Amino acid sequence: MEDNGPSEWRFQANQHLIAASSRSIRNIIVSLINKLGKEDERPAIFLGHGDPSVFPSFRTTVSAEDAVVNAIRSGKYNSYCQDFQGLLPARRAIAEELSRDLPHNLSADDVFLTSGGVEGIKSVAAVLARPNANILLPRPGFPEYQANASLYHLEFRLFDLLPEKSWEVDLQSVEALADHNTVAMVIINPNNPCGSVYTSHHLMKVAETARKLGIMVISDEAYATINFGENPFVPMGTFASVAPVITIGSISKRLFVPGWRLGWLVINDPNHILSKTGVVESLECCQRMTSDVATFLQGAIPEMIEKTKEYEEFHSKIIKILRDTADICYAKIKDIPCFYCPYKPQGSMFMLVKLNLELLEGIHDDMEFCVKLVEEESVMLLPAVALGLKNWVRITFATEPPTLEDGLKRLRVFCQMHSKK
Amino acid sequence: MEDNGPSEWRFQANQHLIAASSRSIRNIIVSLINKLGKEDERPAIFLGHGDPSVFPSFRTTVSAEDAVVNAIRSGKYNSYCQDFQGLLPARRAIAEELSRDLPHNLSADDVFLTSGGVEGIKSVAAVLARPNANILLPRPGFPEYQANASLYHLEFRLFDLLPEKSWEVDLQSVEALADHNTVAMVIINPNNPCGSVYTSHHLMKVAETARKLGIMVISDEAYATINFGENPFVPMGTFASVAPVITIGSISKRLFVPGWRLGWLVINDPNHILSKTGVVESLECCQRMTSDVATFLQGAIPEMIEKTKEYEEFHSKIIKILRDTADICYAKIKDIPCFYCPYKPQGSMFMLVKLNLELLEGIHDDMEFCVKLVEEESVMLLPAVALGLKNWVRITFATEPPTLEDGLKRLRVFCQMHSKK
Repeated sequence: MEDNGPSEWRFQANQHLIAASSRSIRNIIVSLINKLGKEDERPAIFLGHGDPSVFPSFRTTVSAEDAVVNAIRSGKYNSYCQDFQGLLPARRAIAEELSRDLPHNLSADDVFLTSGGVEGIKSVAAVLARPNANILLPRPGFPEYQANASLYHLEFRLFDLLPEKSWEVDLQSVEALADHNTVAMVIINPNNPCGSVYTSHHLMKVAETARKLGIMVISDEAYATINFGENPFVPMGTFASVAPVITIGSISKRLFVPGWRLGWLVINDPNHILSKTGVVESLECCQRMTSDVATFLQGAIPEMIEKTKEYEEFHSKIIKILRDTADICYAKIKDIPCFYCPYKPQGSMFMLVKLNLELLEGIHDDMEFCVKLVEEESVMLLPAVALGLKNWVRITFATEPPTLEDGLKRLRVFCQMHSKK
Repeated sequence: MEDNGPSEWRFQANQHLIAASSRSIRNIIVSLINKLGKEDERPAIFLGHGDPSVFPSFRTTVSAEDAVVNAIRSGKYNSYCQDFQGLLPARRAIAEELSRDLPHNLSADDVFLTSGGVEGIKSVAAVLARPNANILLPRPGFPEYQANASLYHLEFRLFDLLPEKSWEVDLQSVEALADHNTVAMVIINPNNPCGSVYTSHHLMKVAETARKLGIMVISDEAYATINFGENPFVPMGTFASVAPVITIGSISKRLFVPGWRLGWLVINDPNHILSKTGVVESLECCQRMTSDVATFLQGAIPEMIEKTKEYEEFHSKIIKILRDTADICYAKIKDIPCFYCPYKPQGSMFMLVKLNLELLEGIHDDMEFCVKLVEEESVMLLPAVALGLKNWVRITFATEPPTLEDGLKRLRVFCQMHSKK
């Protein structure tokens, strides 16, 4: 048709949504992938985002795959899940599993299945968003918290993590930021992007601060099972009697199948404060309006969790690889003059490295560093500006050792090429 | 701990979210299921919501299950999907499949995978929500549109469907409701809850009205493959050159696996108006912040769509059952004095029946009718007040014929028991 329709189409772009999504980590990852040097015949090496499931060493357990196949073949899970929190046996299995490390027992009612950790973040933002409320988020942090807070018009304020103190939360800055409209603070433990694992003592301090401020703690424990350093992982729920805790977790990370999109929100609240204040009801309402995890994936959860032996073998193997690759990565990075890494990772899949731009020629910030690196060496790192911290980069060490070594070698060459003479 | 914490916890219930979710159809379904007569030894019969996949006759094809199993076993789809619109081969297969019935060719870029139709509804609401905008929704309709519009503060206005005119859209009321802040109208075709399938002529009129008003059409075609009457199904996209169309669809409904949560949004817009106005960019941003469909389910889509022969056999069998059960349902309902059904369903899984309360003793509205019915006869219908229409009920005929006959018999007995003497 030649004519252009009515004098005016009434719909238009949603600038608010576009602005909110610009914070999403995917934007930067995709834009960097698009810059990959087309003429480079070497394979591209992705050390920017954490998804090692493509590598043979990180292939999930056969029993996890079996569980899904059995659920599909049973024909029992083709229907809608009528229980908007998730199938009861799945929630019960998760509650039992998580209770093993807690001083209180979780019940199935405390568990809400979500489509990966990201949907958990979205639900928390939707539930906490009310006029004038604000939430405290870590810097550096995971940008999906900011994106989803923006989407729902929930104000966020950033507190610092302290590189010289094992990336612990700067609790003084938390107190300074909070006011009577602050409703929650977020911690990520084991930490993405810093690789830190918080001590029990620090978590207690977090809980006491939250209690003092009258706020809840949102504890993102997607990497709960991925720790290999001296600090054992302690769930934030351990201190839920001090201040209520909503935990964000994921079986996708535990089994190295992030593409399965299988996560949960868990209410840790032995004093029932979240339920008395109506937060739990709000969360129920939110989940009622949200698309469920595929029913057969829910149906597969009990079998996935039951196969402890296979899982434990898999887990030991993975932890050994990650301990080794974290060591390699830390050692090699220390050897590159323009880098400074204040902390050797103890968990998650990441370490955070500071750029000394004064030693580099013609590179003015972390983004430029990463763009040139991907163009010239086909190696991808994540510029930490995406995580709220300028002139740092996030490196994942969750990859096959030879790939990691190759990537770090290219990184070293790149830094040499660009170093001031 | 004995003390109750700080003098005041700062978080509270989110009343806006609770109010929005109260519109969700799940609320009513769950509350009715909870009222099921505990002493009734007969099996409960669910004619309130459409999910026949629990019945042997409606078991999906082996080839669809194979496709998912193959994707899981391949180990190729354990990772995050880096393409936030969905895996390219999946989007390409859907674009090709849908293009067969359209005057224009869809490209993979026009397709966005969503977690079931509901997530498509949510994304559309998020994208269209901007200050003062409003959307026109059908009454009766599917309440998730209202719930999600409310969630995102998008005003909605209800236009009528006309029972005496095959439940066509009252285009006069559409024009009367629209103003310069109206951005879209929603149609559902084949229609849930009315069972109608719109003629090509009517869809053209819808498109012309939308063009006149300068708005887009959101066409919910979740039941696209489920029609068995005299009107062939015509996709709204056929008229996309008149006014731009976003189609909501689902493979879950096509294959009778709603629990797989596998849907899509499709841009039908040969004149590129949605892209020029920034609506497509907004949708991309929205999808970037949304959890993906599990990657292996995306990976299974091309194989699911390719197995045409198995699918066609399955589809013929299902259509035959539904044609029969629709006939049975319509005939039996006509025979019950307190019911009036203006339209024999031609598609979807539903019919809408008016209650003549004057013939009933001690029943004052559709909700009371359904509550007593479930308590006394363990038969569940959906009170249409949930769909915006008072004193009607929605009945699904998508069930095994003997179950349907049993349900309708109990319904008849119930009406006799409660009829005025």
